[in-house]
Amino acid sequence: MDDGFKTSLADCRVGIIGLGLMGGSIALALRGQCLSISGHDIDPDTIERVLDRGVIDSPIDLSGSTLAIDLMILATPVGSILDWIARLSIRNDSFHLIDLGSAKSRVVAAMQQLPDRISPIGGHPMCGKETAGSDAADAGLYRDCTFVLTPLDRTLPTTLSIAHELIEAIGAHVLILDPDRHDRIAAAISHVPYLASIALIDAARQMNDNAAWTMAASGFRDSTRLAASNVTMMLDVLTSNRTAVLESLSRVITSLQSLSTLIEQRSDSELRERLEMARMRRAILFKQ
Amino acid sequence: MDDGFKTSLADCRVGIIGLGLMGGSIALALRGQCLSISGHDIDPDTIERVLDRGVIDSPIDLSGSTLAIDLMILATPVGSILDWIARLSIRNDSFHLIDLGSAKSRVVAAMQQLPDRISPIGGHPMCGKETAGSDAADAGLYRDCTFVLTPLDRTLPTTLSIAHELIEAIGAHVLILDPDRHDRIAAAISHVPYLASIALIDAARQMNDNAAWTMAASGFRDSTRLAASNVTMMLDVLTSNRTAVLESLSRVITSLQSLSTLIEQRSDSELRERLEMARMRRAILFKQ
Repeated sequence: MDDGFKTSLADCRVGIIGLGLMGGSIALALRGQCLSISGHDIDPDTIERVLDRGVIDSPIDLSGSTLAIDLMILATPVGSILDWIARLSIRNDSFHLIDLGSAKSRVVAAMQQLPDRISPIGGHPMCGKETAGSDAADAGLYRDCTFVLTPLDRTLPTTLSIAHELIEAIGAHVLILDPDRHDRIAAAISHVPYLASIALIDAARQMNDNAAWTMAASGFRDSTRLAASNVTMMLDVLTSNRTAVLESLSRVITSLQSLSTLIEQRSDSELRERLEMARMRRAILFKQ
Repeated sequence: MDDGFKTSLADCRVGIIGLGLMGGSIALALRGQCLSISGHDIDPDTIERVLDRGVIDSPIDLSGSTLAIDLMILATPVGSILDWIARLSIRNDSFHLIDLGSAKSRVVAAMQQLPDRISPIGGHPMCGKETAGSDAADAGLYRDCTFVLTPLDRTLPTTLSIAHELIEAIGAHVLILDPDRHDRIAAAISHVPYLASIALIDAARQMNDNAAWTMAASGFRDSTRLAASNVTMMLDVLTSNRTAVLESLSRVITSLQSLSTLIEQRSDSELRERLEMARMRRAILFKQ
């Protein structure tokens, strides 16, 4: 059943589609740990720049009869990952396929339809920077981050094993989840915090008082850091994880409404309990 | 009219009530820039520790007939600042008085009632750390921070001038505001972001899924950093700035609700506009 699929990362010709921050960083982190690294990007200038800088060995020849790739990594926004899955499914190439998209349900559903000569697995590394683009690529980006894998029933054991190797090679830690569970969690710890930071800036803007920006200190800077994220990327994320985002956002709104009620009703002891519980939960999480 | 009031910081015997992070840090930052520094804290151990470490020169003798202080700094939570204003008003001492409380309307209203021998001014330095207590005190805490002053009609010119000297001496920048305006802004850029961080943790907790904490990365850490703040201090802040907090919180909730509607209705172009506007506003603010 595994015929034609490489069984170790060292033997793989790795192909990366999307050479921005995530794709460029994985290329840098993988250097010397696989047979070769080829890459493609929608922007020809990006391909030239990463070739010049030695981030990849060669461009992917999409017009050739074979891609000559054993492990394909889709490192584009989710919308474009779905397009690439469709595009790859009508070729004759055989390879392991992993994506790095921030929402997994739709990607995994699309992967389900791939022909048998492609063995797919969903992936999502929990790292990033606000600075997008290949120039921000960094070999250390994935170090110590949690890398979620969402295997399908059809995922070959060698694909799962190569994915583990890949994740170890770039210094990250594997967390296996089913796609829906991943999406719910990603909404709560990443996509909705982004929306919260947007709303905090919105609300401050509405005061129309420039002194607000003079007074804003490190607390506001950190609370709104996610608002500096690339808008096209975040729009893609919100769109592709709509259901989970709306559900989690509604939980945050309900929580804020109940905090408002406690403050209004001067229920100080209940309010204190809520604040303490959140503080403790976070202290456990980040060991502070 | 200025009789008995010192006209320069260098001639002042400075007294600090509350020797935690804020009071301890201002003592460290003022060393060598005034005649002497005495201090008081509700916790006798804290007084001993800061004396041992040379943070202050002497304890304030509250049982003496005179406090021997020319510039008094109230560096306690707002609730306690109000108590101290009442307590100082029935003594016979004469001094400049400034507080460092996070909410100004109630403090300034209380200051308004002080006898003429005390010349008060409200203050609020926009800095801090999540680590509370005198042991976290840091001479550099105030460097480059915005220090809001809320003068009263009755504030003597020498008091305003000494406050300016004080702020310059600790490396901060003066911003003059009226108390209500200060409170509205502080709610928007500090108190409500704190509540948002609490709600984000609340919502993540409600999923009852431990994988959420494994997946949580730097974005969630920064978005929720304010939730690590000292709960007693934040409860004091929320309570003493209730009106402005509720108003600003309601703006954030409305903004989140409208973001939710845009996502639900797939109004991608309007959503993009909202996200871009917030991103740009923040980029101007933090020069990113």
